[in-house]
Amino acid sequence: MQREEGALTTQATAAASRLSVMNFLNEAANDYPRAISFASGRPAEQFFSLEGWLAAVPDYQAHAARAAGQSVTQAGRLLAQYGRTAGIINALMAEQLGRDEGVACEAAQVVVTAGCQEALALLVPALCRAPGDVMLARNPTYIGITGVADFAGIEILPIECEDGESWEQALARVAAALRREGKTARGFYLTPEFDNPTGTVLDEAERRSIIAGCLEHRIVALEDNPYGMFRYDGTSTAPMFSLDPAGCVIYLATYSKTLCPAVRVGAAVLPRRLFGSEAAAGRLRAELSERKSFVTVNTSQVTQALVGGVLLREAGSLARLVEAPRAFYRGNRDTLVGALERAFDGGRGAVRWNRPDGGFFLGVTLPFEFGQRETVECARDHGVIVMPMTFFSLDGTRRDEVRLAFSNAGPEAIEDGVRRFAGYVDAKRGAAA
Amino acid sequence: MQREEGALTTQATAAASRLSVMNFLNEAANDYPRAISFASGRPAEQFFSLEGWLAAVPDYQAHAARAAGQSVTQAGRLLAQYGRTAGIINALMAEQLGRDEGVACEAAQVVVTAGCQEALALLVPALCRAPGDVMLARNPTYIGITGVADFAGIEILPIECEDGESWEQALARVAAALRREGKTARGFYLTPEFDNPTGTVLDEAERRSIIAGCLEHRIVALEDNPYGMFRYDGTSTAPMFSLDPAGCVIYLATYSKTLCPAVRVGAAVLPRRLFGSEAAAGRLRAELSERKSFVTVNTSQVTQALVGGVLLREAGSLARLVEAPRAFYRGNRDTLVGALERAFDGGRGAVRWNRPDGGFFLGVTLPFEFGQRETVECARDHGVIVMPMTFFSLDGTRRDEVRLAFSNAGPEAIEDGVRRFAGYVDAKRGAAA
Repeated sequence: MQREEGALTTQATAAASRLSVMNFLNEAANDYPRAISFASGRPAEQFFSLEGWLAAVPDYQAHAARAAGQSVTQAGRLLAQYGRTAGIINALMAEQLGRDEGVACEAAQVVVTAGCQEALALLVPALCRAPGDVMLARNPTYIGITGVADFAGIEILPIECEDGESWEQALARVAAALRREGKTARGFYLTPEFDNPTGTVLDEAERRSIIAGCLEHRIVALEDNPYGMFRYDGTSTAPMFSLDPAGCVIYLATYSKTLCPAVRVGAAVLPRRLFGSEAAAGRLRAELSERKSFVTVNTSQVTQALVGGVLLREAGSLARLVEAPRAFYRGNRDTLVGALERAFDGGRGAVRWNRPDGGFFLGVTLPFEFGQRETVECARDHGVIVMPMTFFSLDGTRRDEVRLAFSNAGPEAIEDGVRRFAGYVDAKRGAAA
Repeated sequence: MQREEGALTTQATAAASRLSVMNFLNEAANDYPRAISFASGRPAEQFFSLEGWLAAVPDYQAHAARAAGQSVTQAGRLLAQYGRTAGIINALMAEQLGRDEGVACEAAQVVVTAGCQEALALLVPALCRAPGDVMLARNPTYIGITGVADFAGIEILPIECEDGESWEQALARVAAALRREGKTARGFYLTPEFDNPTGTVLDEAERRSIIAGCLEHRIVALEDNPYGMFRYDGTSTAPMFSLDPAGCVIYLATYSKTLCPAVRVGAAVLPRRLFGSEAAAGRLRAELSERKSFVTVNTSQVTQALVGGVLLREAGSLARLVEAPRAFYRGNRDTLVGALERAFDGGRGAVRWNRPDGGFFLGVTLPFEFGQRETVECARDHGVIVMPMTFFSLDGTRRDEVRLAFSNAGPEAIEDGVRRFAGYVDAKRGAAA
């Protein structure tokens, strides 16, 4: 009991600390409205076409009428009514996920959620049911999974490969260490393609190694993939969902980046069999629906119809729609990396970064610690806002890193922002020298 | 610890039993598709006007553009983007709640949620934070609150006035009994106007008595009011929110019945001061937003704009829009009560019911127990589906009652359904005689 309370206190402290950073960042944006911000990973809104997408609702309505042998009027009324908890556009989503993201699945495997965040909020407590059940995540990790675990009172622990270790070995090591403490790892959250916050990618061997470890220790991998359609160089790696032989991967889908966040439509795609058992997969699907019925009842059928209508118009693929924003993000990535190279000795000095092949983020390592105080100094004295990587850290490490988002600012702002950031780094190093 | 586990097991059993009834009712509807159903409390979809309401989105967009000094295009882009966690149509909702429901509040008191169900899912764990914190509810009660408590592992207990007792006295008695068990009542869920499932109303004295008890024992009353705009006779009683002198009532609003369920827009309206403290109200508001950011991020701004656009078009009141459905529901209530009178000796015999002044439901008391077996018999042999009241009961009582919903069926179906139900009751009593 003492240990439990200790763990809860630590969780609460970590959550409070993250919350305070989040509040602080909002305040910084308000206090320094003319600062250039690399903080927000929002998609670029100039590519949203809300009016056009709303006009696709009748397309879905006509489709639903045909499918059910109803009049268009009757289909419209049922669309506005309460509906199936697990969603109504599951078949259209399954088709799109197969075509665009290499996720071969059937409609019955898809649970439509109010954004991917709701899928996390339903899955974490469904997987971690007993005291001592814990979640794993790469470190640093997306704040959305940490917040869910914190509020559900479920411990979330970092997992990383130690020198020379495979993921399978790392999972075995962590699972054994947890067992000795009377704990059990039930889920492993990760974004293998263009991770938030680091921008990195896991290769196929790493993905297969994680799957082997998850199957061995009966850990459910939650494969988040909001950025998969935003690749700028090279070729995509198969999603873990498609490499999973016996069913340990749940795939998380979202339309927040490919269409727009305001639709609040995402999904959890369950494997046909969970650890080899069709019945277990069915039970988890049923439990997610049951939980969802007490959170959002069902995902808005208005926005499901909007997404469904766009999918019908685009013949089941969003590849054409993401072309323009992808070109914009690629340009931003190039601008950002180029500006960093010019500002910081081509990356050969004490300031280093990665050049991501896709996604919205990259990480920069600094020759000094960068926390809350530094964020204020940087915003106040140099007019640029960046995210301390500790905000995403599960254990307080990564103190000398920051995350730069390049999805929302334009190229001039990126150039100017990097110059300002370099000014801050120079001043900081000058002061230390 | 033993007691904790006992409580959890009881909770789990109760939840499983409710779930099995729910599954069973869905199956009954599938197995007996030609049965007339009094089970569903869905609003009547012939009054939905999805196409017209979607056309109101640009009205909200223009309004938002004017308010922010932006172009309509820019406002549309921001509408499609991530947005404020607590919502964007708070001021319009506050205006409508004041005009239509007597809930005087300001925008800052409103937290917009993905349907009222999300408000419950956020509030219950926010109010019941410590082990031993429990929820209270009238008995029987809406299944949405029970499901939230069950999944959050929070005990939910029935509270009823014993003979001659006021609500204030009942709250004092229950609070004292809980204290002796080391427990604390933190919240009290109720629907004072046209309760689901009973259709009953609490008068002003009862509402004031509940408020007095809640203030004395620091219990937050969750006043749900989905049916308040559907009154057929008499005059409305002031909502508890407006009778609350020091801040113990949170008002729950929804557009699922006044507009349509598919918008998934509701709200929690917080008092200005919580138990007299403005800071405490602010902390609860902030916590609800924080929790929401890890469940649905924000309520779809597409559907918020739809609701906002309709509110703008209707000049801040939905009174005109609900006229036609209200007349339909009133007719259904009259048809149902008339049919019951004809079928069951004018209510002077062993079968009795209430004549609700509004809402979607009434309760019928039978001269025998009506559970799962009886529901099947009734559907299979007599072609009519009714809800056993035990489904809504927190303690297994109400075994000889059923709930009849009259919102969704047409008048002929209601007449025919009551004849069928009377045939079942006669057969059952004949068999027992």
